[in-house]
Amino acid sequence: MSYDRALTVFSPDGRLFQAEYAMEVVKKGAAVVGVKGSDCVVFALEKFETKKLQDSRTVKKVGAVDTHIAMAYAGLSADARVLLNKARLECQNYRLRMDSECTIEYISRYVASIQQKYTQQGGARPFGLSTLIAGFDRDHTPHLFVTDPTGSSTEWKATAIGRNSDPVIEYLEASYKPTNNIDETIDLAMKALLEVVDTGSKNIEVCVIEDGKQMKLLSDAETTACIERVEGEKKKEEEEKRKKVMQL
Amino acid sequence: MSYDRALTVFSPDGRLFQAEYAMEVVKKGAAVVGVKGSDCVVFALEKFETKKLQDSRTVKKVGAVDTHIAMAYAGLSADARVLLNKARLECQNYRLRMDSECTIEYISRYVASIQQKYTQQGGARPFGLSTLIAGFDRDHTPHLFVTDPTGSSTEWKATAIGRNSDPVIEYLEASYKPTNNIDETIDLAMKALLEVVDTGSKNIEVCVIEDGKQMKLLSDAETTACIERVEGEKKKEEEEKRKKVMQL
Amino acid sequence: MSYDRALTVFSPDGRLFQAEYAMEVVKKGAAVVGVKGSDCVVFALEKFETKKLQDSRTVKKVGAVDTHIAMAYAGLSADARVLLNKARLECQNYRLRMDSECTIEYISRYVASIQQKYTQQGGARPFGLSTLIAGFDRDHTPHLFVTDPTGSSTEWKATAIGRNSDPVIEYLEASYKPTNNIDETIDLAMKALLEVVDTGSKNIEVCVIEDGKQMKLLSDAETTACIERVEGEKKKEEEEKRKKVMQL
Amino acid sequence: MSYDRALTVFSPDGRLFQAEYAMEVVKKGAAVVGVKGSDCVVFALEKFETKKLQDSRTVKKVGAVDTHIAMAYAGLSADARVLLNKARLECQNYRLRMDSECTIEYISRYVASIQQKYTQQGGARPFGLSTLIAGFDRDHTPHLFVTDPTGSSTEWKATAIGRNSDPVIEYLEASYKPTNNIDETIDLAMKALLEVVDTGSKNIEVCVIEDGKQMKLLSDAETTACIERVEGEKKKEEEEKRKKVMQL
Amino acid sequence: MSYDRALTVFSPDGRLFQAEYAMEVVKKGAAVVGVKGSDCVVFALEKFETKKLQDSRTVKKVGAVDTHIAMAYAGLSADARVLLNKARLECQNYRLRMDSECTIEYISRYVASIQQKYTQQGGARPFGLSTLIAGFDRDHTPHLFVTDPTGSSTEWKATAIGRNSDPVIEYLEASYKPTNNIDETIDLAMKALLEVVDTGSKNIEVCVIEDGKQMKLLSDAETTACIERVEGEKKKEEEEKRKKVMQL
Amino acid sequence: MSYDRALTVFSPDGRLFQAEYAMEVVKKGAAVVGVKGSDCVVFALEKFETKKLQDSRTVKKVGAVDTHIAMAYAGLSADARVLLNKARLECQNYRLRMDSECTIEYISRYVASIQQKYTQQGGARPFGLSTLIAGFDRDHTPHLFVTDPTGSSTEWKATAIGRNSDPVIEYLEASYKPTNNIDETIDLAMKALLEVVDTGSKNIEVCVIEDGKQMKLLSDAETTACIERVEGEKKKEEEEKRKKVMQL
Amino acid sequence: MSYDRALTVFSPDGRLFQAEYAMEVVKKGAAVVGVKGSDCVVFALEKFETKKLQDSRTVKKVGAVDTHIAMAYAGLSADARVLLNKARLECQNYRLRMDSECTIEYISRYVASIQQKYTQQGGARPFGLSTLIAGFDRDHTPHLFVTDPTGSSTEWKATAIGRNSDPVIEYLEASYKPTNNIDETIDLAMKALLEVVDTGSKNIEVCVIEDGKQMKLLSDAETTACIERVEGEKKKEEEEKRKKVMQL
Repeated sequence: MSYDRALTVFSPDGRLFQAEYAMEVVKKGAAVVGVKGSDCVVFALEKFETKKLQDSRTVKKVGAVDTHIAMAYAGLSADARVLLNKARLECQNYRLRMDSECTIEYISRYVASIQQKYTQQGGARPFGLSTLIAGFDRDHTPHLFVTDPTGSSTEWKATAIGRNSDPVIEYLEASYKPTNNIDETIDLAMKALLEVVDTGSKNIEVCVIEDGKQMKLLSDAETTACIERVEGEKKKEEEEKRKKVMQL
Repeated sequence: MSYDRALTVFSPDGRLFQAEYAMEVVKKGAAVVGVKGSDCVVFALEKFETKKLQDSRTVKKVGAVDTHIAMAYAGLSADARVLLNKARLECQNYRLRMDSECTIEYISRYVASIQQKYTQQGGARPFGLSTLIAGFDRDHTPHLFVTDPTGSSTEWKATAIGRNSDPVIEYLEASYKPTNNIDETIDLAMKALLEVVDTGSKNIEVCVIEDGKQMKLLSDAETTACIERVEGEKKKEEEEKRKKVMQL
Repeated sequence: MSYDRALTVFSPDGRLFQAEYAMEVVKKGAAVVGVKGSDCVVFALEKFETKKLQDSRTVKKVGAVDTHIAMAYAGLSADARVLLNKARLECQNYRLRMDSECTIEYISRYVASIQQKYTQQGGARPFGLSTLIAGFDRDHTPHLFVTDPTGSSTEWKATAIGRNSDPVIEYLEASYKPTNNIDETIDLAMKALLEVVDTGSKNIEVCVIEDGKQMKLLSDAETTACIERVEGEKKKEEEEKRKKVMQL
Repeated sequence: MSYDRALTVFSPDGRLFQAEYAMEVVKKGAAVVGVKGSDCVVFALEKFETKKLQDSRTVKKVGAVDTHIAMAYAGLSADARVLLNKARLECQNYRLRMDSECTIEYISRYVASIQQKYTQQGGARPFGLSTLIAGFDRDHTPHLFVTDPTGSSTEWKATAIGRNSDPVIEYLEASYKPTNNIDETIDLAMKALLEVVDTGSKNIEVCVIEDGKQMKLLSDAETTACIERVEGEKKKEEEEKRKKVMQL
Repeated sequence: MSYDRALTVFSPDGRLFQAEYAMEVVKKGAAVVGVKGSDCVVFALEKFETKKLQDSRTVKKVGAVDTHIAMAYAGLSADARVLLNKARLECQNYRLRMDSECTIEYISRYVASIQQKYTQQGGARPFGLSTLIAGFDRDHTPHLFVTDPTGSSTEWKATAIGRNSDPVIEYLEASYKPTNNIDETIDLAMKALLEVVDTGSKNIEVCVIEDGKQMKLLSDAETTACIERVEGEKKKEEEEKRKKVMQL
Repeated sequence: MSYDRALTVFSPDGRLFQAEYAMEVVKKGAAVVGVKGSDCVVFALEKFETKKLQDSRTVKKVGAVDTHIAMAYAGLSADARVLLNKARLECQNYRLRMDSECTIEYISRYVASIQQKYTQQGGARPFGLSTLIAGFDRDHTPHLFVTDPTGSSTEWKATAIGRNSDPVIEYLEASYKPTNNIDETIDLAMKALLEVVDTGSKNIEVCVIEDGKQMKLLSDAETTACIERVEGEKKKEEEEKRKKVMQL
Repeated sequence: MSYDRALTVFSPDGRLFQAEYAMEVVKKGAAVVGVKGSDCVVFALEKFETKKLQDSRTVKKVGAVDTHIAMAYAGLSADARVLLNKARLECQNYRLRMDSECTIEYISRYVASIQQKYTQQGGARPFGLSTLIAGFDRDHTPHLFVTDPTGSSTEWKATAIGRNSDPVIEYLEASYKPTNNIDETIDLAMKALLEVVDTGSKNIEVCVIEDGKQMKLLSDAETTACIERVEGEKKKEEEEKRKKVMQL
């Protein structure tokens, strides 16, 4: 069986092995949670332990695509930089052509179509990353998209990519409630990430995208405050659970 | 035997394996039914269960090619987006060149010829999808075409692609009657799809193309209403069958 | 032995395997009979059973190359469309360049030369079809050409391609007589096809090319009339044979 | 050992297998005899049995390259057509550039250089044919050249290519005498071909190239007349031989 | 298993073998230490023993990218020269386009993106080197970046690449203290390198980058002075350690 | 071991197999002797037996590159024609650019550089021939160069290429004396060739290049005269040898 | 293990086999010694035995790159000519662009960068040679560079490439003393070469590059004189050694 070695060949049961192997890269990447509130989109990102002397700023897994759009990713960071640059360029081109900023959906599809191209045509491997793309359209509606190495692009209220994304998504499905409170949105993203990541601001990073503002990374202090608030709530929830169990 | 690994090589009995493997992808895709009435064409589409928080709007398996043409598909959605974009561009080019909109047949053949090209020339795998292309020509006649990964393009009164398409087509052959009633056309498409899909608006989606109008996706309420109407009829039919059997 | 896998390599005994495998595709295609009369050329085409709801018009195995030239084929229909489009374009180019329509021989050689190219140069498989190309030159002489996947182009009084072509050609050789009666030409084509195809208008299609007219497909009624006439004659012939045998 | 599969690789003993395999194609082709007289060049060509209804005109193995040059070939006819067209184009280009017609040697080398190119560079197989190129230069001297799949180009007084060419060449070597009688030249070509081909105008074709005239194919009647004359002579020769043997 | 031989193919567990093998080249290269002070960045470089008559100037593992940027590397020097030239050219282009010098981060990402490209696209192997890129931005802040064969680019306070980099980095992590004293910065870099390199100016080379100045390589005398100072301190440290141990 | 099959790959011991295999072709070619006198250069060429009716003029192994330069070769004649044409074109280009004819060394290096290129770059096999290139520079000095399939180019007083070149070269080394007598130069070339070739003008051909004249092929009569003269001398030499032996 | 067959692939331990195999070619080449004095650079070159009649001038392993730069090499002479031509062209281009001659370092790096390119990109093998490049910069300083098939470029006081270079380099290391006496420089180069080459002007060639002069090859007489002088000195040295040993 060598269907998996050729870049752009179907296997007899219609699978594209190289794209699936690229998904393996994603599954090894740091976890990223994205949650869409009514007036913000929040990314909570796992920080892989950086060496003591490393400047953690340069290994951030999130970047601005345009003034109103942020992209987080799970997978190969070198590949991510390439996609990010292509997305930034397209945003600028769109402005020049259209005299207007592009929608979140437009740029998400653009990123996904680049990823698709590398699964169909020879001469290059697929991109080894999934992305979360978030921001506000001109009509002030928030959007949160996911693209993956096969080139699919889908919108979500809340989701996660990277390491252990399944339990995180389950937590989000159980806990998601629409809210127009930014803190609640941050808290949900953080709680979901804490399902699979150890607590502490050295392991977690939070990025908030609000309408008409540039994406903002919370400071360590803000992050720690959040974590404490969330930890407290989590404890309460668990105590309540325990009580309920004991009452039975 | 390795005729199947090379992209553009015939096997000794004249088969093109890669194109056949691409058909496997189609057979795993969500089922789509297309039915042509005298004044409308209807697509009934299976909705694969979306994650709870996913925006189902972004995984729709149908899109507008032009103001008067809709395309549904079964197979890889990332590939479908590529074909859909190529088809849209060709429609615009046609308008510019011809100062008129293209026929449904024209655009179907165009889509099929792109699919054929990827089965004959090296450097890229075939497209992993079949399409249903429907709309009204300028002479107000409805059309419904199917294209597949080998690049064939054929017109149908009613047909289905994707998962379990054989029993659906059998049902359509048994039940199809020409009608100029839109509801009857919708009901037939839905009944056919219900042969292989569980009932309920979260599993089914309906798209209606009428002459001179843009393609329209039924709302969940409308879909539920349809489903109830259809379920009722189906029960009646079955009861009648049972009665007939008992009368024997 | 892997001479057959490479696209453009001779085997030690000088064979081109890929071209031979493409001939296998032709041998599986629907049978087509072509007969040249003095004032018409007739194609009789086997119709593969179409699904009940399929529009049989879109699976026709014959098309107009130019106002005065028709092309029928046996093999992959997606490939055929590509060849047909190339032939149509060349006819238009010829008119522009020459201010005159091209001869049947010219366009047959053109089609064959495209087929040859795909057997000699790398990067693409041969075309999986044979064609019958027929029409009238400006001097009012009818012509009937055959091209095949190796790129050969030959003229015939009457011949057949596709499924079971050998017994059909034998029948034609035994029965062909020059005639300037269109009906006799149609009858011969139909009788030959009936050697390998079941009777009935749903299995047979007839295309007539006359000088100065566009190619014309007989209606179902006309075809049925023809079939009846032919069946009657066939019976007579067989009875006469039987009589002769009995007289012995 | 796989030196033979790669298109442009020497084997350890310095052979080019693909070119040799292409020679196998030539050895299976219909036999062609070329004889140069002082005022004509004659081709005698074996006609492979054509199907009864086939127009033998379109399977002729000889064609005009320019008004004063004819090319016959043994091997793949689809390849031959490509070479013939390239040669015709070069002749026209030469006229435009030089305001004069090219020599027979010039066009023979041109054809051979195309054949050579396909044995040295990748991406395409060699041409599967040998050619006989004949005609008169502007100085009224007749020429007869042979090119083969390796790209060699040589001039001959008389020679043969294709099926069983060895005994034919032996006959020519034994019987060739310079002559300025066209009939004697035709007779020699025919006698040589009859060494390996059954007699009769349906098996043999004769092409005569005279100075200042276009190449001319003898009619069936003329061919039959020739054959009878030749057969008579052959019988005489054999009788004389027998007598000589008996006298001993 | 041959995932490692193809240039741009993922293995089933999502690894890129060729990029990993290129890392092996880096691990065999001479060790390089980089330390960022508040007013300088220092490279301490291991000198591989040069042949006695070799001009050691031409095997230096450090070079100026621009007036304000230095690049050191570990790995293939021939590859390094290519990257260095590309980086120099980009710096000049940036000046022309922007009328300003580029930031250290900009050029580091540029170098990394070239390295990434060679891991994704076919036709060339990855670059066999890691780089340390250091300098001062226009805002007088020092920067120290590392790029590697996979195309990642990260900033560090202090780090090492090449042979035995792990113990060197451990030493740096244990000993690094922010300082605005150039000598202390040099001493730290040298002490770290001496963890894995034999003492002596023939084995060590020091490069100092200060704000607004060109990179400067210490002379042998300066280097020897440094080494003596550092050796003395190291001895003291060890004695103190021993004393502490003995006091216990 | 498959280092020999790839066109441009070194074997572990640094050999280029394809170039070596091309040398095998040369070793099978007809022998060619080149001798440089002070006022002429002479080629003596072995004539492979041509078929009786073949025009031996068209299989000559020597041709004029420019008015003052001749090229003989051993190996594939189809390849030789390609090289010869390239050399002729370069000579004309040189004249146009420089308004002067090129030197023998210039064109020899040009031919060799083409041969080298085909041993280093993919997509084509090496040229299967060695050449002897001879002529007079503008300063009236004669030159004789050899190029081979590896692309080397060297000058000789006298040498041989092709079949059995070793004993011929040995003879030349033993017998070569500088002379300004053309006949002596011819005789030496002929004697050397007769070491490995049977006597007689049908086996040998002589080409003389004199300063300011075009290359000249000796007529059969002249060649026969030469041979007789040479044969006589050879006999004398042998008799003298025998006498010397007997005197001992 | 087939990492060595692909042109541009790392082995798991980070080696480039094709570049290493190219080094094998260098190790089989004729030995070349380069020695830099303060007012000259001297190459002593081993002459491989040339055939008696070969013009040894055309197999020289040294050539002028520019008026002030000489290049000697060890390895494939056909490859060397290509590199030499490229270097010459670059020197001319540099003059045109810069209105000044390039430095020795510049052209050495240029040559090395071409060699590097052929180890990284597909489609061609590495160059099979190492070079010594020597000359004087405009500031009258002599330079001596070595480039090798991997693309490295280093400067030396004295070194050797080719056959048996290790003992030669050892001798140079033991004997090198800076000198501004040309004869001493020549003698050192010659003595070093005589370590591995038999004595005699037919085996040795000497090239002297002085500031402001063109490179000069010593005549046979001069070379013989040198050899005698050197042989004498060598004997003395050995006698002195013996005496010392005997005195012990």
